[in-house]
Amino acid sequence: MPKPKRKSKASANREAKQSKPAKKGLLERLAEGPVIGDGSFLLVLERRGYVKAGYWTPEAVVEHPEAVAQLHREYARAGADVSQSFTFYASEDKLKFRGNEAAKKYGVNKINEAACSIAKGVADEYGTLLTASLSPTPSYLEGKGKDVVQAEFKVQTEIFKKYDVDFFLVEFFPHLEETLWAIEVCKEYGKPVVASMRIGPDGDRGGNSPGKCAVEMAKAGADVVGQNCHFDYTTSLQTIELMKAELEKEGLSPYLMMQPPGYHVPEANKGGMSALSEYPFAFEPRLLTRWEAQDFARKAFDVGVRYLGGCCGMEPYHIRGIAEELSTERGGRLGEASENHGMWGASLSTGSFLSTMTHRVGKDYWMKPPATGRPFSASYSAFFEGKPKAP
Amino acid sequence: MPKPKRKSKASANREAKQSKPAKKGLLERLAEGPVIGDGSFLLVLERRGYVKAGYWTPEAVVEHPEAVAQLHREYARAGADVSQSFTFYASEDKLKFRGNEAAKKYGVNKINEAACSIAKGVADEYGTLLTASLSPTPSYLEGKGKDVVQAEFKVQTEIFKKYDVDFFLVEFFPHLEETLWAIEVCKEYGKPVVASMRIGPDGDRGGNSPGKCAVEMAKAGADVVGQNCHFDYTTSLQTIELMKAELEKEGLSPYLMMQPPGYHVPEANKGGMSALSEYPFAFEPRLLTRWEAQDFARKAFDVGVRYLGGCCGMEPYHIRGIAEELSTERGGRLGEASENHGMWGASLSTGSFLSTMTHRVGKDYWMKPPATGRPFSASYSAFFEGKPKAP
Amino acid sequence: MPKPKRKSKASANREAKQSKPAKKGLLERLAEGPVIGDGSFLLVLERRGYVKAGYWTPEAVVEHPEAVAQLHREYARAGADVSQSFTFYASEDKLKFRGNEAAKKYGVNKINEAACSIAKGVADEYGTLLTASLSPTPSYLEGKGKDVVQAEFKVQTEIFKKYDVDFFLVEFFPHLEETLWAIEVCKEYGKPVVASMRIGPDGDRGGNSPGKCAVEMAKAGADVVGQNCHFDYTTSLQTIELMKAELEKEGLSPYLMMQPPGYHVPEANKGGMSALSEYPFAFEPRLLTRWEAQDFARKAFDVGVRYLGGCCGMEPYHIRGIAEELSTERGGRLGEASENHGMWGASLSTGSFLSTMTHRVGKDYWMKPPATGRPFSASYSAFFEGKPKAP
Amino acid sequence: MPKPKRKSKASANREAKQSKPAKKGLLERLAEGPVIGDGSFLLVLERRGYVKAGYWTPEAVVEHPEAVAQLHREYARAGADVSQSFTFYASEDKLKFRGNEAAKKYGVNKINEAACSIAKGVADEYGTLLTASLSPTPSYLEGKGKDVVQAEFKVQTEIFKKYDVDFFLVEFFPHLEETLWAIEVCKEYGKPVVASMRIGPDGDRGGNSPGKCAVEMAKAGADVVGQNCHFDYTTSLQTIELMKAELEKEGLSPYLMMQPPGYHVPEANKGGMSALSEYPFAFEPRLLTRWEAQDFARKAFDVGVRYLGGCCGMEPYHIRGIAEELSTERGGRLGEASENHGMWGASLSTGSFLSTMTHRVGKDYWMKPPATGRPFSASYSAFFEGKPKAP
Repeated sequence: MPKPKRKSKASANREAKQSKPAKKGLLERLAEGPVIGDGSFLLVLERRGYVKAGYWTPEAVVEHPEAVAQLHREYARAGADVSQSFTFYASEDKLKFRGNEAAKKYGVNKINEAACSIAKGVADEYGTLLTASLSPTPSYLEGKGKDVVQAEFKVQTEIFKKYDVDFFLVEFFPHLEETLWAIEVCKEYGKPVVASMRIGPDGDRGGNSPGKCAVEMAKAGADVVGQNCHFDYTTSLQTIELMKAELEKEGLSPYLMMQPPGYHVPEANKGGMSALSEYPFAFEPRLLTRWEAQDFARKAFDVGVRYLGGCCGMEPYHIRGIAEELSTERGGRLGEASENHGMWGASLSTGSFLSTMTHRVGKDYWMKPPATGRPFSASYSAFFEGKPKAP
Repeated sequence: MPKPKRKSKASANREAKQSKPAKKGLLERLAEGPVIGDGSFLLVLERRGYVKAGYWTPEAVVEHPEAVAQLHREYARAGADVSQSFTFYASEDKLKFRGNEAAKKYGVNKINEAACSIAKGVADEYGTLLTASLSPTPSYLEGKGKDVVQAEFKVQTEIFKKYDVDFFLVEFFPHLEETLWAIEVCKEYGKPVVASMRIGPDGDRGGNSPGKCAVEMAKAGADVVGQNCHFDYTTSLQTIELMKAELEKEGLSPYLMMQPPGYHVPEANKGGMSALSEYPFAFEPRLLTRWEAQDFARKAFDVGVRYLGGCCGMEPYHIRGIAEELSTERGGRLGEASENHGMWGASLSTGSFLSTMTHRVGKDYWMKPPATGRPFSASYSAFFEGKPKAP
Repeated sequence: MPKPKRKSKASANREAKQSKPAKKGLLERLAEGPVIGDGSFLLVLERRGYVKAGYWTPEAVVEHPEAVAQLHREYARAGADVSQSFTFYASEDKLKFRGNEAAKKYGVNKINEAACSIAKGVADEYGTLLTASLSPTPSYLEGKGKDVVQAEFKVQTEIFKKYDVDFFLVEFFPHLEETLWAIEVCKEYGKPVVASMRIGPDGDRGGNSPGKCAVEMAKAGADVVGQNCHFDYTTSLQTIELMKAELEKEGLSPYLMMQPPGYHVPEANKGGMSALSEYPFAFEPRLLTRWEAQDFARKAFDVGVRYLGGCCGMEPYHIRGIAEELSTERGGRLGEASENHGMWGASLSTGSFLSTMTHRVGKDYWMKPPATGRPFSASYSAFFEGKPKAP
Repeated sequence: MPKPKRKSKASANREAKQSKPAKKGLLERLAEGPVIGDGSFLLVLERRGYVKAGYWTPEAVVEHPEAVAQLHREYARAGADVSQSFTFYASEDKLKFRGNEAAKKYGVNKINEAACSIAKGVADEYGTLLTASLSPTPSYLEGKGKDVVQAEFKVQTEIFKKYDVDFFLVEFFPHLEETLWAIEVCKEYGKPVVASMRIGPDGDRGGNSPGKCAVEMAKAGADVVGQNCHFDYTTSLQTIELMKAELEKEGLSPYLMMQPPGYHVPEANKGGMSALSEYPFAFEPRLLTRWEAQDFARKAFDVGVRYLGGCCGMEPYHIRGIAEELSTERGGRLGEASENHGMWGASLSTGSFLSTMTHRVGKDYWMKPPATGRPFSASYSAFFEGKPKAP
């Protein structure tokens, strides 16, 4: 198999930078300006053929490490500051939940080790921050209690520690309580902790408002708090504003984060985007364009968000868009992949056969709502969890 | 970097098959049933960060061979029979056209060699057919004549021959004349020749009808003739029917092929999809779902198409869809990636946290037009080459 | 000009009823079940060519009384219980506001008299309740104070009294204060008073919540309180629920009313539907179908609304839909126009040339969202008061 | 019931004109410039509550003459040159077809007499041309032959003659043969004959192309030939171009006419708009705006159409739009109803409470595709005669 070779100017610069002995940590980078997370692994690798929808577990890290590594590289090249090990849903109870054979076949250790190892390889090469995430456990839902749940978490975090992650990530939790348990486990390692919940403006499943969730996460020691997945960025900007207001009221000032999905799901109600009937196999028309990813980045930055990445469905070109939008705020930094793009699609100005396309450059040109090409499709899904929503 | 490991049952079967000394050739496979081509390189690798929109040339094969190889593997795993070297727009005149520095930086030989070498590696591993394509040249447009154009082609075909491609591919031509020149060059090597044009029902730019184009390509010796890119599959099915009718009238019976783009562009007129104002950076809402790719496969097969693949924007999950739709016609064969999917999304039936999603399986469930999530978007683009189209 | 003749069974029944000396009053009818108001005059007569958009004043009652009478008859035939004199915006200050010559040309008295006279003619013929409405005054906006504003109102209400309206109507007010002044004037006549404001869930322009507005209107003596115009029924159902909750908290129980516009304007923000850029001359695609009017009727009834009619854009076929939906709750009563329709479009079952159309009857058939036929149109207006709304 | 009074300047002018002894005939007017037909009776009166969908017969002329007269007046005021008696589907066989009791209840004579009488009253008042139409008969479909069918026609035309129509109209025919039989009957009266068929670009049900139909109608003596109903104006403009080309080839030059429906039905196939599943009770979102009616008028005029009116669903404000668009070509003439509108909505410039709306005037402002307000609706109907159309 061919080996990656990187000869571009940007990569030369990067190598030069890498010669500096120490890379900056998360909090240091956040103090300087916005930090860019990476994008989706589950849904992107499902489309590439490596993840099984249903269980949504990450055994691809063992089965097809080259595919996972490739995606990590794409995010790093797009401009991400972070390489997040693909440890989502990799707690042991989840790996064996409802007939899932991943635990038996590979084991929780091997999966978490492989995920960290792959991400570390890319982080070392590109100078990105290494992290790994904890996610909701079946044990919590089954009411097994704090000790059992935290024991599941610790199996993972011990491996994260072994690979010396730069910070710990806690994400996609729908219950504040389990989130706080996860934060507590992570705090033991003396590294920064980043925590986000998959809640909307209505709050978590236990009836806690977004503001309450943010305050509790911050009080539990999370250095960065926020929202990820399930609602689109427009909806989640409201959630973040509710979090921010309550944090300010309490005199707390953690950094704010958003990692929305790469989809438009404006009609999603409390159940989030997975309750829409087209999820997960007919969501293509909802995919953000790169320009809409830029729109997210600008609006989130303006609201005060400083850790911006993507969740389900957010692809490398979206992360590149976020990086391009915030390049000024990041000292002009761009990912290598921007060499093939240019701000607002400047690469088109060179023309090719189609000289008529050279004017398709610029913010004004690209920020109009794109046509869908789908006259047989409605804008909104009529079905929510099986029940038609009124016209 | 981690090396691919394949331990699945499907791959074990494949290895068993590979031990057979000779793989079947294109015409042999076509005689048995439908053959599945692979998908898009240019637009998919643009989104992954490796191709520059504008020139649209394939220097990524030299700069980032691992990214190109990974995409080849994804198509092979999806169920493609063919690994098509990424030699599109790699004639020397195109590599230096309008300020493009690819020719100077890497040279036409190195690029075509790298492309063939990467594809050959994957073809050897997966037992797919190796091919490489010729595409339109600037020299033709500049009126330099047959000798000059064919000389451009021969530089490429000599390399294709060196890598022992299983067949030659001629594609994306808007002029019948240049197509025939390309076929003529390919025919010299004594291998099967596959030829497709990027024309719609109105025919080529020289005023030749689809039927005329098909007949001439067949008379020139193409074993497979058809249409690729520029118009969506609904429109191109009409083109194919026009081709078929004229071929039958002339008593010709080459195999028919279709490699449509992965987008819905029903409103495209003669200029094809690149004339729509959202091209190429805001086409996401137009992306086919996997089910629409299945719909294409079924309809194309029913019309008589036997070589079915994808062009710009057609991704691995689309190719998997085509392979799943035609698995019965292909003796039950499926790509490895179908292990993570199952027919009509059967993997969802296992459930996960969301037991409410287990019913989301089956043709009836998925064949409804998906919502777009885009209430600010129209279905059709109002602007064609700068001129608004009437409501 | 031909004279109306009515020989149908329904009209015979009606005549029989008319022989009873006294028709039931508003409160008596409300005690028995839902009361149906009539629909739009301004926008419907604008489309018929009799009202001038801009001033939106009702001088058509003088200029073309036959057109106004005809529309009254259509509402009565559709099943309305109420004939509302076309006195909207007929205060003297409005009739001469910003260059409007209606006051000078015809005078406030003549216009209000003509409006009442026409409506009375139809009410007498069809047994409907006669009413007439007060609407917002320029004097209020110009800060002229309670005395001036109430003087404007009294000119109108004295005429309403002269025509012996069955009840007084106060509507379309965006300010609670002016609403209360209008109610106060109407209460002097010892007849029932119905009051509705054109507010959304965010409340009135003075910062009063819908609940506060409802409570104050009820305390001021309005027998029926609610919402009309400006927001579509889906949005206004929320407004009504907010009103209801607060009324219950205060131990108040006026009847609730809704007279929404005949349009879908889900994206309207605080400015209401007139802030959408397509208002008022490109609102056709937003027109409710008759089935959507039925949907409104059912949902409003279920929430507890007992006075249901329509405002701008609500046409006779919408009122017929409301009457058909609630016919069971109204003792089986239907308007005469239902003879030409039947429940859920039953008239189609007779067939005509197109026997294929006879199955197009029934709730299941008609309650699906209708296609728009408009591939160049978006669902939502991108422009609100000149400022584009984000995608 | 109040009597119409007309005191406007326009009506004064009209009265002045009326004092001239002879009004100009159809051919005379066509020689001077475009002639404007009137709009829809069936579907408009269905929505107003006077026509029964299913049979679609015009007994409203007997039952509610005031409603029919009012609609005639609205078209005349909008700027129509023609008052077309409501005799559609009023052949005797149709009035008793499939259980229809109209023939028995009122009789063919009474219905046709009433229709002509009402229209004549308005034509006399407004100086419009009086006409009446023949439409397809069940007898033709039942194969009863020329004599029977023409006998049905003659019952009607004898009444038309009695009311001294200015010209005869033959419309909505799907078969060329029956059209020619109708023209033959009309020609006997020595008046101009206008003939249009409800065909699309694919031609009539007997396999005759639009060109063939036009040529045959002209050869049969029709002074004006064209297309009406069933397909939207965009589609029918193609039909007209096909007609025109063939007429020119044959050296024939009748005037061309178009009376399209007031709906967007771009996805209608051979079955026309009534085959769309939303027909006839959920077609509101498809209604043309007044601006789209202007667009029709301009494009039709540019193609050479000189008789422009509307069929099903075309309302008074559409006819006003057509008249406003062509006012220059008609010597500055406008209907009375334009006093309440002004070119491109100029009446809004006066403002009202909403001074922010005064800029909503002008072609540039109004010619953008309007939003639909319907996020749950698709652009195209997925069902055609019960069979889903592919995405």
